[in-house]
Amino acid sequence: MSSAPPPAATSPVTAAAIQFDPQVGVENKDRNLRRTLELVNEAADRGATLVVLPELAGTGYAFATREEAYAHAEEMPAGPTTRAWIALAQERGIHLVGGLVELDDDGVRLFDTAVLIGPDGLIGKYRKTHLWEREKLIFTPGDLGFPVFDTRIGRIGLLICWDIWFPETARLLAVQGADVICSANNWVWTPPPLFDEAGRCMAAYLTMTASHVNNVAFVAANRVGEERGGRFLGCSLITGTNGWPIGPVASAEDETIVYAGLDLVAARSALVWNDLNDLARDRRTDLYDPLLGYRGGVALPR
Amino acid sequence: MSSAPPPAATSPVTAAAIQFDPQVGVENKDRNLRRTLELVNEAADRGATLVVLPELAGTGYAFATREEAYAHAEEMPAGPTTRAWIALAQERGIHLVGGLVELDDDGVRLFDTAVLIGPDGLIGKYRKTHLWEREKLIFTPGDLGFPVFDTRIGRIGLLICWDIWFPETARLLAVQGADVICSANNWVWTPPPLFDEAGRCMAAYLTMTASHVNNVAFVAANRVGEERGGRFLGCSLITGTNGWPIGPVASAEDETIVYAGLDLVAARSALVWNDLNDLARDRRTDLYDPLLGYRGGVALPR
Repeated sequence: MSSAPPPAATSPVTAAAIQFDPQVGVENKDRNLRRTLELVNEAADRGATLVVLPELAGTGYAFATREEAYAHAEEMPAGPTTRAWIALAQERGIHLVGGLVELDDDGVRLFDTAVLIGPDGLIGKYRKTHLWEREKLIFTPGDLGFPVFDTRIGRIGLLICWDIWFPETARLLAVQGADVICSANNWVWTPPPLFDEAGRCMAAYLTMTASHVNNVAFVAANRVGEERGGRFLGCSLITGTNGWPIGPVASAEDETIVYAGLDLVAARSALVWNDLNDLARDRRTDLYDPLLGYRGGVALPR
Repeated sequence: MSSAPPPAATSPVTAAAIQFDPQVGVENKDRNLRRTLELVNEAADRGATLVVLPELAGTGYAFATREEAYAHAEEMPAGPTTRAWIALAQERGIHLVGGLVELDDDGVRLFDTAVLIGPDGLIGKYRKTHLWEREKLIFTPGDLGFPVFDTRIGRIGLLICWDIWFPETARLLAVQGADVICSANNWVWTPPPLFDEAGRCMAAYLTMTASHVNNVAFVAANRVGEERGGRFLGCSLITGTNGWPIGPVASAEDETIVYAGLDLVAARSALVWNDLNDLARDRRTDLYDPLLGYRGGVALPR
């Protein structure tokens, strides 16, 4: 390891991952939005300057039909959720990430979208590229790739839920120079086992290892609660660039906010491991071919 | 989830990951080899039919100079370690994976190599593609890609140690149809924290998540002990296709053998998650570009 002292934090932020229980249903839209504003305000009151809400925080998750999803959708940035979040981020001087149902300008396509908002307004959005289960019957797969947004506090990438099951996603954000990845999630009950003896679900480990191998911090917010028979895993967490959680990994039970101090540009340090290894340089892109199809077997080098 | 019962195991094996303490030094070569034979015999006595030894099991790890590494190297399959392992696998009717220093036919290049041997002899080899720290001063980076070998018990891929820090490696083996990945490791002390409250090191989590997202079993053998001031992390483990360890994750302290029963072809099931998600089909290869360089920032979709 390097014997040099680490540089002082040049972009210290207090990050917050908000874990709560929105509920699907048009009759709940106002309550959901109000609740996000309350919780973001609470996080800001406690000093958070980068705040992440779950996937579909403004609407709940378990749409019964496409028609019901349309009734929850909004155009961006004209819709009420986006406008309220923009006003709040401006008022509190924070960066805010949250998920909602986006109705495309064409009035037809629905996206499972996360917005990134800064003190000066809307910075950008990410449309979920890997859709889980019944989402496939409602949403169009994201068509904006994996953008990384330059902000005054650092470069921010966004992911949503099932995306983290695909290691390519965090990798693509990292090679574009993301300093932190904010993941907005509705991690659901998956085939057991759900939690290990450390109280963590596999999605927490997927977040930790994606953070670790890419030397990038993660702020991962998941929801809790139950909705139309489906349950959610909690496990919201924040990791440093070494992948280990800073502070607790949230339980599956509680509405809570996870906080952690991060140097948002720590990911830019060249000396992560030792003086001979560099994650970016060590990649064997000469050997990677992600488009490789199933070939069943290959020639056997002996 | 599917309501169909899981198919009966069509290729049941007992896998064994051998964790022990080889020692570098030409004077120790005979002892190291003898010890591998003892331990593989012990595993076979207990019913193991797929046995994995650590990286560089025949030689130890911490070569002081290139010259010393040459003194430990052997040609394949003519060298004494390879020949002894072939004889043992034939005698016991098992599949065996283990690591050694390979001297290329050119008499010059050294590779950090894992061999796969079956009851009928040598099946193939893998040359470590991602080199850790001082290995870079000794070994040539692997030039055989990421082969998957067809065997009578299933399709076997090989990885070595630092490879697992690169999610592309397991992914490339999985998309070629690997049923199990055998990783031969010398996981070393890395920047702290080393172990969490569950007693696992990050390498164990890298193994678990690589297994989980690729729906492939892992048999990961690491070494323990101390060598010329360097220490090793243990944490040998075997995972099912769901990524969770079957049985214990070994400690960093003990020479031990981890056993688990696997259906080696379970990875071929199409119905892993539910009736709408399929890991292979869900990949957004239209959006992946692993050759993507560092671009610093991208256009901001709004």
